[in-house]
Amino acid sequence: MTISPTANPDLSAALERAVNNKTKPLGSLGVLETLAKQIGLIQGTTALSIVEPAILVFAGDHGVVAEGVSAYPQDVTWQMVENFLAEGAAINVFAKQMGCALHVVDAGVNHDFGPRGGLHDRKVAHGTRNFAQEPAMTAEQCAIALEHGKALAAGLPGNVLGFGEMGIGNTTAAAALMHRLTGIPAAQCVGAGTGLSAGGVLHKQRVIEAAAEKHAGTTAPLEALAAFGGFEIAMMAGAMLKAAELRKVLLIDGFIVTSALLVAARLQPAILDYCVFAHCSDESGHKLMLENLGARPLLNLGLRLGEGTGSALALPLLHAAVNFVNQMATFESAQVSEKSE
Amino acid sequence: MTISPTANPDLSAALERAVNNKTKPLGSLGVLETLAKQIGLIQGTTALSIVEPAILVFAGDHGVVAEGVSAYPQDVTWQMVENFLAEGAAINVFAKQMGCALHVVDAGVNHDFGPRGGLHDRKVAHGTRNFAQEPAMTAEQCAIALEHGKALAAGLPGNVLGFGEMGIGNTTAAAALMHRLTGIPAAQCVGAGTGLSAGGVLHKQRVIEAAAEKHAGTTAPLEALAAFGGFEIAMMAGAMLKAAELRKVLLIDGFIVTSALLVAARLQPAILDYCVFAHCSDESGHKLMLENLGARPLLNLGLRLGEGTGSALALPLLHAAVNFVNQMATFESAQVSEKSE
Repeated sequence: MTISPTANPDLSAALERAVNNKTKPLGSLGVLETLAKQIGLIQGTTALSIVEPAILVFAGDHGVVAEGVSAYPQDVTWQMVENFLAEGAAINVFAKQMGCALHVVDAGVNHDFGPRGGLHDRKVAHGTRNFAQEPAMTAEQCAIALEHGKALAAGLPGNVLGFGEMGIGNTTAAAALMHRLTGIPAAQCVGAGTGLSAGGVLHKQRVIEAAAEKHAGTTAPLEALAAFGGFEIAMMAGAMLKAAELRKVLLIDGFIVTSALLVAARLQPAILDYCVFAHCSDESGHKLMLENLGARPLLNLGLRLGEGTGSALALPLLHAAVNFVNQMATFESAQVSEKSE
Repeated sequence: MTISPTANPDLSAALERAVNNKTKPLGSLGVLETLAKQIGLIQGTTALSIVEPAILVFAGDHGVVAEGVSAYPQDVTWQMVENFLAEGAAINVFAKQMGCALHVVDAGVNHDFGPRGGLHDRKVAHGTRNFAQEPAMTAEQCAIALEHGKALAAGLPGNVLGFGEMGIGNTTAAAALMHRLTGIPAAQCVGAGTGLSAGGVLHKQRVIEAAAEKHAGTTAPLEALAAFGGFEIAMMAGAMLKAAELRKVLLIDGFIVTSALLVAARLQPAILDYCVFAHCSDESGHKLMLENLGARPLLNLGLRLGEGTGSALALPLLHAAVNFVNQMATFESAQVSEKSE
């Protein structure tokens, strides 16, 4: 599997002309213009489209919660999955508002849901192991999670795929991954997650520092992923890789989703060409993670909820970018005078 | 006419409870939570709603274009009004996407449109006079423009009103108003508008500085408005005042719309309780103007187009704020465990 860079000078020039001929001052739609050109390059055409956008929400549990790194009990993971299925969570509300399909995936929740309509059962195990003591998953489990993610992405219609997650403890896993893959000190990678006190954040940092030392040898992207987990992060990384291979637009949510992308981008750097960064989370490490990826997020709303909520909220901006290219008049068609200076 | 502050401690507490009981970590929807509470206070209820949102786009011409302050010829104002009526402009595309009604108003364009379906004819005159030489409008014209604005706002259904504008030369009028009403030096109020060169921006600054000296006595808000114009700015100020009196949510767009609000807020400071600031424009003075008003904009997309495009693009976030309050499950209803720490 190889992801091709989207660079295409002829198409770039054609997109530039299409954008600049619209009845507006040059560059005056700002980021939407950049976005339109990126979408065009991904889709390989100036005839942009958004077809059946979908958000995949991956849920998984984390053995590292045994270290007391989360403000909420582990049961909240499965309870929130039930909430997704009952359409009561924030992501349900926002996906519905934005006309976006929502797919909920059990990547490795520590709970037996039984066969359930609306839930993709891709459970690798009942949660990862505690990475403070041993690797979160085996290399085989990691490979399985990646493959499940690829299969899920390949099975969806549509050309825009957003990502979201749920998993008590997963900001700890994401911060540990970030620390390992970027070299940024753990103190700058950790944040309050669902609402830790300052003391709780410091404890989380210590847990990550100790684990980083324990798994000091795991520097390759997939080794790091297996060492720190979780199953939802690995499955997302797989889904991202496949979605980019299929030339879909990838809508990247907050801290945990971006940690999955960090892994995917270390494996296939060209994946970044396919990524639209929905928002900058209030989880403190996210800004640094985005900088590390050279990403400029669309929104900055102080969100720190996960679930793909930022992806859903950014979707209207993707539509706007596509719509202005497809629907606005040109200076010529509208007989509007051009710049005189 | 008096605009009442929205403050209401009992309702605030009820809104706070409604937001905090939703199945999400406390505060994790960031700005959307602030927005939901603001909308509740405006509407005087915890049962939030968005009903028939509309954007009013006011067009007007400016005598000061004779000083060579714009990159585009004056004809572009009426040509763009035609483009609005033909649904070819950016605001048409975005308003349509967002399910938002669009009303185009001739506040004082230097062109005879004749009777036209879809155009509100509220023309005060064929453009303002050149404020480099004389006041842009008479006190009477200013009063007429304000009254037209009030009548337009009063005639619209719905509880959310967005504002937009079109007028070659109107960043110069807005910058002059800003300079006069805030005391911020002209150099920090002016920007490139539709695309001036650095030399053009400097010339614009000089024109404003000279005019500020010429109309040195006009310090009261309405005097300043009459001195610098334009008709679309005055009409917007009137519409804003009436809309807030009617307890509608006001969606404030970019630099020129905010200059109209500056006037309105000097007359009725409580109007700010009703304002949602859609975005921070790339027009350089806008950030300072927002700071002067203590405003925190929702979006920062590098837009500098006007027309109400930022208002339209922010509308999904208002819907999201309302929807999460109305549709999300509570911890109790979803049987999700609360924070354990």
